[in-house]
Amino acid sequence: MKAEDSQKLIAGKILRGESPLNLEMPFEKLEGFLTLTESFYVRTHFPIPSIHKDAWWLRVEGDVENSFAINYEQLLELASTTIPMTLECAGNNRSFLEPKVKGVQWGLGAVGTAEWTGVPLSILLDRAGMKANASEVILEGADGGMLEDPKSPPGQLKFARSIPIEKARADVLVAYKMNGSDLAPQHGFPVRAIVPGWYAMASIKWLQRIIVTDQPFTGYYQTIDYAYWKRRAEVAELTPLTEMQVKAQIAKPAEGDVVPANSGVRVQGTAWTSNGEITKVELSTDGGSTWNDTNLLGEPKPNAWRLWEFNWQTPAAARTQTLIARATDSLGRTQPVERDRDRGTYMINHLLPIEVEVR
Amino acid sequence: MKAEDSQKLIAGKILRGESPLNLEMPFEKLEGFLTLTESFYVRTHFPIPSIHKDAWWLRVEGDVENSFAINYEQLLELASTTIPMTLECAGNNRSFLEPKVKGVQWGLGAVGTAEWTGVPLSILLDRAGMKANASEVILEGADGGMLEDPKSPPGQLKFARSIPIEKARADVLVAYKMNGSDLAPQHGFPVRAIVPGWYAMASIKWLQRIIVTDQPFTGYYQTIDYAYWKRRAEVAELTPLTEMQVKAQIAKPAEGDVVPANSGVRVQGTAWTSNGEITKVELSTDGGSTWNDTNLLGEPKPNAWRLWEFNWQTPAAARTQTLIARATDSLGRTQPVERDRDRGTYMINHLLPIEVEVR
Repeated sequence: MKAEDSQKLIAGKILRGESPLNLEMPFEKLEGFLTLTESFYVRTHFPIPSIHKDAWWLRVEGDVENSFAINYEQLLELASTTIPMTLECAGNNRSFLEPKVKGVQWGLGAVGTAEWTGVPLSILLDRAGMKANASEVILEGADGGMLEDPKSPPGQLKFARSIPIEKARADVLVAYKMNGSDLAPQHGFPVRAIVPGWYAMASIKWLQRIIVTDQPFTGYYQTIDYAYWKRRAEVAELTPLTEMQVKAQIAKPAEGDVVPANSGVRVQGTAWTSNGEITKVELSTDGGSTWNDTNLLGEPKPNAWRLWEFNWQTPAAARTQTLIARATDSLGRTQPVERDRDRGTYMINHLLPIEVEVR
Repeated sequence: MKAEDSQKLIAGKILRGESPLNLEMPFEKLEGFLTLTESFYVRTHFPIPSIHKDAWWLRVEGDVENSFAINYEQLLELASTTIPMTLECAGNNRSFLEPKVKGVQWGLGAVGTAEWTGVPLSILLDRAGMKANASEVILEGADGGMLEDPKSPPGQLKFARSIPIEKARADVLVAYKMNGSDLAPQHGFPVRAIVPGWYAMASIKWLQRIIVTDQPFTGYYQTIDYAYWKRRAEVAELTPLTEMQVKAQIAKPAEGDVVPANSGVRVQGTAWTSNGEITKVELSTDGGSTWNDTNLLGEPKPNAWRLWEFNWQTPAAARTQTLIARATDSLGRTQPVERDRDRGTYMINHLLPIEVEVR
């Protein structure tokens, strides 16, 4: 496994694109269960909207009894909750795909865990009063612009995504704090959605509109982009990305690192899934011939990653060793060995070997 | 209005692509209400499947009580019906779009009317017994292959499209004759679907499978291809193409033709719509300043075009005249003046002026 070599760092993060701005955490800098806000990866699709919180309104409309708009001050008066949650870009690990595919060439670090504070979306939906036919909720950001893709709609486009009503009611947050502070501009200031367990494209930043609808939403970022092929009756159907797939990543040592021979080396990483919890992370230090259980640290928390570590007794002689981590969750799901090409450029969770030098 | 000039003719039709084969009728060769099979435009997406009728089976499966397969001989024993129907390619007139867009550069002739003989699809669906949750019917052809589009599903793809249950029951045919003869290979031999009033991509050729389903089908030719952008709550949603849009076309005179000054010149054409009938075709001979009612010929037939003509008294002096035809249907729908860019490369029915030389 080889990420891109020429890496330009911006405030400690790897620059993956300037316009729009895309920044990745060097995953070997993993700090612990929570990722510092300044270390957290940044994914944008358009210029970062400049929104003054006193000028911000969130509209709730569509198939509801009472459309309304709420401002920042009013939102902060509502009951709130704080949860730790892992956000992973749906294209995390893309740079490891062979052959190369289009899209931001993320390595391991388009993932992070933060504490998010916000108002349960269900409170806003209850205030609006959803009609009986409501089936989905579209979340729309203030970020937008024109795309060059001939498959995109003409004119201005806003970033928007939908989630089913059941999910919207269950645990989605309308969040205004990240790790205890106001959201940073690049993380959605003043308000963003947090959709637990789903790839991060669903956690709409710069949230400005919530549209309740009675039919499947088929916007650009739900169909042409951020979708994959699912087979039914032997026919491939275009399907919006939703839940994160079970995955373990090795943070330390990193690809190409040199570790001492005949020593105890602590291998560390994280593992996550959705709709379940990580029950096992195995590590192979011999390219997958044998596997060892690692130690899971802390307590499991829903939709947040879990740290793991393993004390590796390195061989006595100098050689290249191939390390592979493999997670399994409480639903028995584990990581595939081979890439499923129906997933296109997304949902990359097959096993990713790394090589380290024992000297 | 200027179609492409360099036109290679194959058996009297304009070659628009060799592999896959795409052939257009020169629209000025309009023969009458019915289009001869050898004049009929040909649209293919893959090599034409070579199917022996004794080896052909049609499977009916999915959300049904009794899946079954039927062969050619058995199909011909069922009750059949014969209807005239217009088929128009969803990209007909594409060569007139400015700026140029990708896709087969059809002029006016990717449209034709034939008599189709076949078994009502409802008979086959009744035999299978649809489950209560059934909402759509997927029609799959034997034509398929690999696409280069990175947005396409990996591996082999078959051409497939869906129609709602109500439409499937109403008037769709499983057709085996065109203009009284067995289907030609390029028109779907041995059996194709005929979906009245819809753009022709729905009238699946080389039909081999009918899959009843309980959810919206999102196959490649229903989403990435053959779809357009429909706005709802100011948000563009990717929407499968369905019904043909109201349209009149001038067959004679054609663009650039020379007509005698101070004479009676017969202007002829066709007009069609779906879910309604053509009630009026107007013709302007002065670039849209004034409009004249034309004579509609014959009787209206559902989902088939109607011929029209107008006796044009040409001016006394030599000049260039701009002719425009405009159809209106029984639902009051008429042709827009300007192109709606949300339609992308499809559903082209805005007014198309042609220029003729009066001498």
